[in-house]
Amino acid sequence: MTKYHMRRKEKEITEKDLLNTIIIEGKYVTISMCRKDEPYIVSLSYGYDQDKNCLYFHCANEGLKIDFIKTNPLVCATIIKDRGYKMNECDHAYQSIVMRGKLISIENLEEKKHGFDVLISHLEENTDRMKKKHLNNEKSYVNTCILRLDIEEISGKVNN
Amino acid sequence: MTKYHMRRKEKEITEKDLLNTIIIEGKYVTISMCRKDEPYIVSLSYGYDQDKNCLYFHCANEGLKIDFIKTNPLVCATIIKDRGYKMNECDHAYQSIVMRGKLISIENLEEKKHGFDVLISHLEENTDRMKKKHLNNEKSYVNTCILRLDIEEISGKVNN
Repeated sequence: MTKYHMRRKEKEITEKDLLNTIIIEGKYVTISMCRKDEPYIVSLSYGYDQDKNCLYFHCANEGLKIDFIKTNPLVCATIIKDRGYKMNECDHAYQSIVMRGKLISIENLEEKKHGFDVLISHLEENTDRMKKKHLNNEKSYVNTCILRLDIEEISGKVNN
Repeated sequence: MTKYHMRRKEKEITEKDLLNTIIIEGKYVTISMCRKDEPYIVSLSYGYDQDKNCLYFHCANEGLKIDFIKTNPLVCATIIKDRGYKMNECDHAYQSIVMRGKLISIENLEEKKHGFDVLISHLEENTDRMKKKHLNNEKSYVNTCILRLDIEEISGKVNN
């Protein structure tokens, strides 16, 4: 496995708190997958479980991303805090992180519920109402796949 | 090579003009690369050459993305027009495209200049001033790599 070294050290984010903040404030992540030298890319809303250091997603039970991770669960994912193009400077302002880890499908009903809970807590403001609406409906889980991305490596970059 | 079929047809963007608009208005693209079952992800500012149906990038002469595309030039890339999370709806509004194609490094000086020109025209408003500043300086090209992504397939998705 390739070891990542940021070429431009002055742009590297090393503070764990700032890396965390980017994940906490982000709403979606773009994920790179790979199957027999074929790349694939997908963007998904996520919930961040800080204790378990993982992201949860929900998606349909079928589709290309499910096929890809069944063959190869290793993914590389990015969250970008876009601060806009810097006109007249040929430059773009952003904070971003890149994570590597494994993306797996959760089968256990209790963890599926937990993942759903994490998602709603991360994304919504009125979480109680949303949880009441979605979490207690067992049928919600039948046709829904909950995925978990275990973050094994993380790096961050800033360009002001 | 996998053929892409959008699962939810009602979300598919089929109008060529709208696909084009998303590329014209976008400022950066996130690219998924793949080397021996190892995924990689990188986000880059781009310029769109509509006539040649390709994107141009500039980057340093060395780095992981160069290593990856030397082994496998096939990439999958996305441009997202983020319209924000829809609070209380558990939903996110966006327009996005996914492209597949080959990403190669340009060696020919004339095409490198053309690529630089396309980049500045795409990104900057005051293009004359920026071109004067950057394009006529031959040294600009020595330590800079110009990459070209030939778009072989494109699909779009909208969620209002």
